[in-house]
Amino acid sequence: MNTLECACAAWAAVLGQENVTTQAGELRAAETATFPTGHRIPAILRPGNREEISECLRVAARFQIPLYPISSGRNWGYGSRAPAASGCALLDLRRMNRILEIDEELAYVTVEPGVTQQQLYDCLRDRGSRLWMDATGASPHCSLIGNTMERGFGHTPYGDHASQVCGLEVILPTGECLCTGFGRFSGTASAPVYRWGVGPSLDGLFTQSNLGIVTRMSLWLMPAPDCFQAFLFRCDQDEAVAPVVDALRRLRLAGVLRSAVHIGNSYKILAGVQQYPWNETAGRTPLDRTVMRQLASRMHFGSWNGSGGLYGTTAQVAAARRAIRDALRGRVDKLQFLDDRTLEMAARFSSPVRWVTGWDLSRSLELVRSVYGLLKGIPTVAPLRGTYWRKRMPPPADPDPDRDGCGLLWCSPMVPATGVHAMAVTRIASETLLSNGFEPSISLTLLTERALCCVISIGYDRDVEGEDDRALACYRALTAELEHANYPPYRHGVLGGYMRGDAAHGNLLRLIKDRLDPDRVLAPGRYEE
Amino acid sequence: MNTLECACAAWAAVLGQENVTTQAGELRAAETATFPTGHRIPAILRPGNREEISECLRVAARFQIPLYPISSGRNWGYGSRAPAASGCALLDLRRMNRILEIDEELAYVTVEPGVTQQQLYDCLRDRGSRLWMDATGASPHCSLIGNTMERGFGHTPYGDHASQVCGLEVILPTGECLCTGFGRFSGTASAPVYRWGVGPSLDGLFTQSNLGIVTRMSLWLMPAPDCFQAFLFRCDQDEAVAPVVDALRRLRLAGVLRSAVHIGNSYKILAGVQQYPWNETAGRTPLDRTVMRQLASRMHFGSWNGSGGLYGTTAQVAAARRAIRDALRGRVDKLQFLDDRTLEMAARFSSPVRWVTGWDLSRSLELVRSVYGLLKGIPTVAPLRGTYWRKRMPPPADPDPDRDGCGLLWCSPMVPATGVHAMAVTRIASETLLSNGFEPSISLTLLTERALCCVISIGYDRDVEGEDDRALACYRALTAELEHANYPPYRHGVLGGYMRGDAAHGNLLRLIKDRLDPDRVLAPGRYEE
Repeated sequence: MNTLECACAAWAAVLGQENVTTQAGELRAAETATFPTGHRIPAILRPGNREEISECLRVAARFQIPLYPISSGRNWGYGSRAPAASGCALLDLRRMNRILEIDEELAYVTVEPGVTQQQLYDCLRDRGSRLWMDATGASPHCSLIGNTMERGFGHTPYGDHASQVCGLEVILPTGECLCTGFGRFSGTASAPVYRWGVGPSLDGLFTQSNLGIVTRMSLWLMPAPDCFQAFLFRCDQDEAVAPVVDALRRLRLAGVLRSAVHIGNSYKILAGVQQYPWNETAGRTPLDRTVMRQLASRMHFGSWNGSGGLYGTTAQVAAARRAIRDALRGRVDKLQFLDDRTLEMAARFSSPVRWVTGWDLSRSLELVRSVYGLLKGIPTVAPLRGTYWRKRMPPPADPDPDRDGCGLLWCSPMVPATGVHAMAVTRIASETLLSNGFEPSISLTLLTERALCCVISIGYDRDVEGEDDRALACYRALTAELEHANYPPYRHGVLGGYMRGDAAHGNLLRLIKDRLDPDRVLAPGRYEE
Repeated sequence: MNTLECACAAWAAVLGQENVTTQAGELRAAETATFPTGHRIPAILRPGNREEISECLRVAARFQIPLYPISSGRNWGYGSRAPAASGCALLDLRRMNRILEIDEELAYVTVEPGVTQQQLYDCLRDRGSRLWMDATGASPHCSLIGNTMERGFGHTPYGDHASQVCGLEVILPTGECLCTGFGRFSGTASAPVYRWGVGPSLDGLFTQSNLGIVTRMSLWLMPAPDCFQAFLFRCDQDEAVAPVVDALRRLRLAGVLRSAVHIGNSYKILAGVQQYPWNETAGRTPLDRTVMRQLASRMHFGSWNGSGGLYGTTAQVAAARRAIRDALRGRVDKLQFLDDRTLEMAARFSSPVRWVTGWDLSRSLELVRSVYGLLKGIPTVAPLRGTYWRKRMPPPADPDPDRDGCGLLWCSPMVPATGVHAMAVTRIASETLLSNGFEPSISLTLLTERALCCVISIGYDRDVEGEDDRALACYRALTAELEHANYPPYRHGVLGGYMRGDAAHGNLLRLIKDRLDPDRVLAPGRYEE
């Protein structure tokens, strides 16, 4: 037996043969992301509990085959299931999918890595819970722990996920198990409710890192508000986004807005409602600004299109609505408030509208509905369908961008929440993508009171020859431009990049890694320089 | 020359002779806290910049004399300036007191460790800033960085200090300088506005720790709200606090309340308005419950007395006021809302009231005024005067509990924000303190949506023979009881304690410390097992 075979035998002894895969088709599928990574996976392991994870790590050290953990592996646009380095066995944590505790009074849930957004949503609904979760738009089947550890974000007041969790249980590369915060004192009721604990706080070390495997996390949930309304707005000019970002920042700082506001440009919205307009462009790519403007105007969306939620008592929501109306007056071309009732009415009118105007409202309504749902923490599959943008096939009922050759590269600079920075970062993105042959699909998320996350998508069809290379070249050009402008990403994909900062920072991380993982068995290359 | 003299000569070569002190009187003063620590300080060093700190650390390593950094040294109740171990030279950072940047648009300030609450408050006022800071009640002259690194808290929506900062500049024990978050990429505008950066986040490592010296920090500030109101409430029965905590938690979770709510028991309030009632007790201590109840009743405060702030637009504050009134109805014996105008009117009536009733309102009014100010982020000296509780001298104009032999030991368990836990922790505190001869002066702070911090003060007169020992015995009994009940403290004083948790947690901290500080030159014993 070669080393791999020996290791697999040892892993099978721990997990059972049925939880160790070396079948070529499955390995190739797992290696396949929405862009080429070239990283080979020699085996897939599916542990069922933390003791098995510890044992897998010990086997990995013995045979010098590193492990790359995934929670659900739906890290689309950043690498899907693919490891950050070649030769890592995939440690697939999906079997560990228990919701361990839901506390209605203190409003939190404790979950394992395999628990998905949809699973938690269904569980809360089924037990008649008064708690709302926060959902990302990525996929209903993405893992709560996976997304939080990547510092993903959603749309409600609990949108900055990394700020809404505590009490991590972590398996270190040596196989030891550690609990952060007050969790290290067993039996402490404050462990899931207060994040810092006492003494140095370790949680930050295990987000966006390769220092440990998070096997448990308490996630704070939001009690359903008495009243909820969404607001949607539209700006018809590109430059209009600057004063809008400034106005929204002031509302957020003032506490009028308590949740993330998402603003998508016209390309982003178009990809949300349909595939590439092959007819209107006579099959040419990229979709240029002139045609884009015509389409947006015909379909009644703007250069920029925003959405946010208002949560509270009826009186609070009414007060917030007035403040938003005042703040956005003269700055947006349209502002609309939406609640369950108005949404239902719109649905009722969608057929008559189609009959009179010939224009199918239902696709737009579907997008609005999914955005509206996300503002209430309801997971949606809609944005995932957008990954089929440049495909010649329609999105299937069970979209899977990895399987279907959907090309997607995400790049997500974090900038200060001012109009000046919003304009600067979107200008870089637009020019770089268009000049490289791709549509600049951009969203700006006012994630906190002070920070704006710009998510730039390079969407393409992997089945078109040469497109993989062109997309990677575009991605490299974009990240170079952003680095030059001092706009670092809030998150890396498996392609890495932009990690080298002051020497002491890098040294400290390296020495912690060296001590925690002397055999380098855990996720080499992940968030490393 | 002995080792210490050699080290002092080397430090003097770096800092200038005038910034190295070995004068016995100054050393004894610096060793003196509000309780006995017994830790000796061989020298005091006053660096003026970070290069000098690095050099001081190198000298410390050469001569094996560790350093204990203090920002302002006003860590009263937890150890004042005294180090966590004997034999540490004090690294006094008060000379580094620059406010480096104030950004009105993004609402943050960047400060050095010597910057005090009062200094920032004055600076904001003098420049006509629209930004409010958050203040702790500790002292106007306590350091912003010092308090934040201890995870102290205040009263406004920015009350949980450790959650409102980012971009730390840290000198490691080796003398290297490191910036956390995006700060490691020089010139990055997002460094002061987004805390996580990219890759593992290190900030948590440097709070409540001895892993580095924080020399710079960006602190988020709150734009002055359009409208501000305070609310004050009172419960006349001890048990009434349970349903009140539950009601307040629900308001906080619902976003109606956005700031910390403080609830003080009768002992806490009494110590805020006067010294120990020697006459009413014929000189006996402790003040028993019966006399306490009589005094509280006469002075119109309750068993529990709460305060909180409402911030927002006029309509938002009005909506919050209604929600609070509804939630506390039947649960409190009195609820009052207060704004600038009502406070002014009360002041105007204080003399007539005295004339009619013989009761001096002005002392109560002074307490209300300081609480009201704290809710607006205005530092106050009032709580500091409470440290003279058991002294036979009145608090001087420049209170200094260390100098004046005020005895004070703080113990601060963090519990889940439920009535059940509030009752349990206050019962332990009351019984332990009274049975050990001290007044159970207790405050409960609803610090976040889910966590309640209970601050228990053991106040005494260090000049009374045997009291130091009795207070320490009481403190030890209290911490043992709290540990037994699984209520860990959110913060340690220099006496340490309650740090041993799961082995892996302790091991990880030790290995980081070993690597970062092989010579153990930085604050040995501080937040260590």
